[in-house]
Amino acid sequence: MDFELSMESTAVTACVLVIGNEILSGRTQDTNLNHIALTLGTWGIQVREARVIPDLEDVIVPAINAAREAFDYVFTTGGIGPTHDDITADCVAKAFGVPLVVNPEIAALIRRRPASEDIMAARMRMARIPEGGGLVDNLTGGPPGFYIDNVYVLAGIPSVMQAMLLGLENKLRRGPVVKSRSVTAFLGESQIANALADIQARFTDVDLGSYPFFKKDRYGTSLVMRGMDASRLDEMLEAVKAAIVEAGETPQDVQRD
Amino acid sequence: MDFELSMESTAVTACVLVIGNEILSGRTQDTNLNHIALTLGTWGIQVREARVIPDLEDVIVPAINAAREAFDYVFTTGGIGPTHDDITADCVAKAFGVPLVVNPEIAALIRRRPASEDIMAARMRMARIPEGGGLVDNLTGGPPGFYIDNVYVLAGIPSVMQAMLLGLENKLRRGPVVKSRSVTAFLGESQIANALADIQARFTDVDLGSYPFFKKDRYGTSLVMRGMDASRLDEMLEAVKAAIVEAGETPQDVQRD
Repeated sequence: MDFELSMESTAVTACVLVIGNEILSGRTQDTNLNHIALTLGTWGIQVREARVIPDLEDVIVPAINAAREAFDYVFTTGGIGPTHDDITADCVAKAFGVPLVVNPEIAALIRRRPASEDIMAARMRMARIPEGGGLVDNLTGGPPGFYIDNVYVLAGIPSVMQAMLLGLENKLRRGPVVKSRSVTAFLGESQIANALADIQARFTDVDLGSYPFFKKDRYGTSLVMRGMDASRLDEMLEAVKAAIVEAGETPQDVQRD
Repeated sequence: MDFELSMESTAVTACVLVIGNEILSGRTQDTNLNHIALTLGTWGIQVREARVIPDLEDVIVPAINAAREAFDYVFTTGGIGPTHDDITADCVAKAFGVPLVVNPEIAALIRRRPASEDIMAARMRMARIPEGGGLVDNLTGGPPGFYIDNVYVLAGIPSVMQAMLLGLENKLRRGPVVKSRSVTAFLGESQIANALADIQARFTDVDLGSYPFFKKDRYGTSLVMRGMDASRLDEMLEAVKAAIVEAGETPQDVQRD
């Protein structure tokens, strides 16, 4: 879409890599992507792609390398605990061609909680970060995440991931925030499809999406406008509301974000 | 993991492509991946990767081509409605290098509901499928989805997507069903990390995953075993339960699927 391309010069983009067999088996419903997308969006960082991949080095390493080339930022979730199946740190190091090294700050934090030698050795897996990397604060008090270059490695547990992300609030480069307007109508999409296409053609600087839904036994559609310029968004919103009225329905649930 | 590799000869694999800006903006929480993964899993088809991508031809076309090469099946969700931003059919046709053609069966179905010329023209967008493709029944009574070769194109609305997937129940090649056992314990992962690594080393035909959680103000971990052989899974489950007891906790919430 022209809209996307016209923003490329100033947009700051991100890719999310959700790492974990349990998401792919369907055992766990991922919610991390949604939280990251919403949070980064308010910071002016646009999530442009997400991949859900298994705990396999042969898959994770190339996925990291492809994503860090293509996007300004990469955020991974999952696989940074102390067990044998936690291989994200190893994979990130391999992707960058650097060794994993014990970070003294994390090691000291881990040693603060006494444990048997066995348990301590397992915990110390979490002190290893790729050489040249830095730490991502963990506001829950547990071991931090880490970053290297533009790749940020976060926990998989939603509450811990969210705390880590919050700690990055003032540490990332920001682009313009994409604003949105939306309105819904109990109309089949085809009833306004032509009007929407005409409106989109007139507003090439705003992205107009039509998302059908099925609620209370009726089909409806949610019209979402996304762009940088608030006054253009408002103008387009009025045009879309007029198209809904023209089609014989009432615009509902107008939102401005 | 050895486990994954040892299954490669008989496994039937799938990739899910979730197409839609609204998922990437965080406006909508995707649930389609979870439903598809669980459903295909019971049919002996393993979802090995998922990608969430925007409504952009330049992204969708290569994603389809990469996925159809790498996996036995590809399932897409979203972008098959009648509006200007529904470009999935166009992209699939382009990926296969074939034209879109009006499917007479879908066209007849669409014409059954009378509408003005304008609205009918918009609806007819949904009658176009790539040349050489076939139909995916839509048990909700709406326009069907379609497939071409190993790529299955489903709706984005969860209820419609689910109905389309159900219609495929007896039409896809199946592999062995991955069985699972799981048990949880209110233990930090590090307390059993070494025992788990030992158990995984003894059971190379079963995949042992450790998934930490935070519930009722306590950290716990869910141990999940996945493999083909029920008796091996049961044997491993007993070993994991023993490791939990050894660490001073009580195994809870044992599940066998």
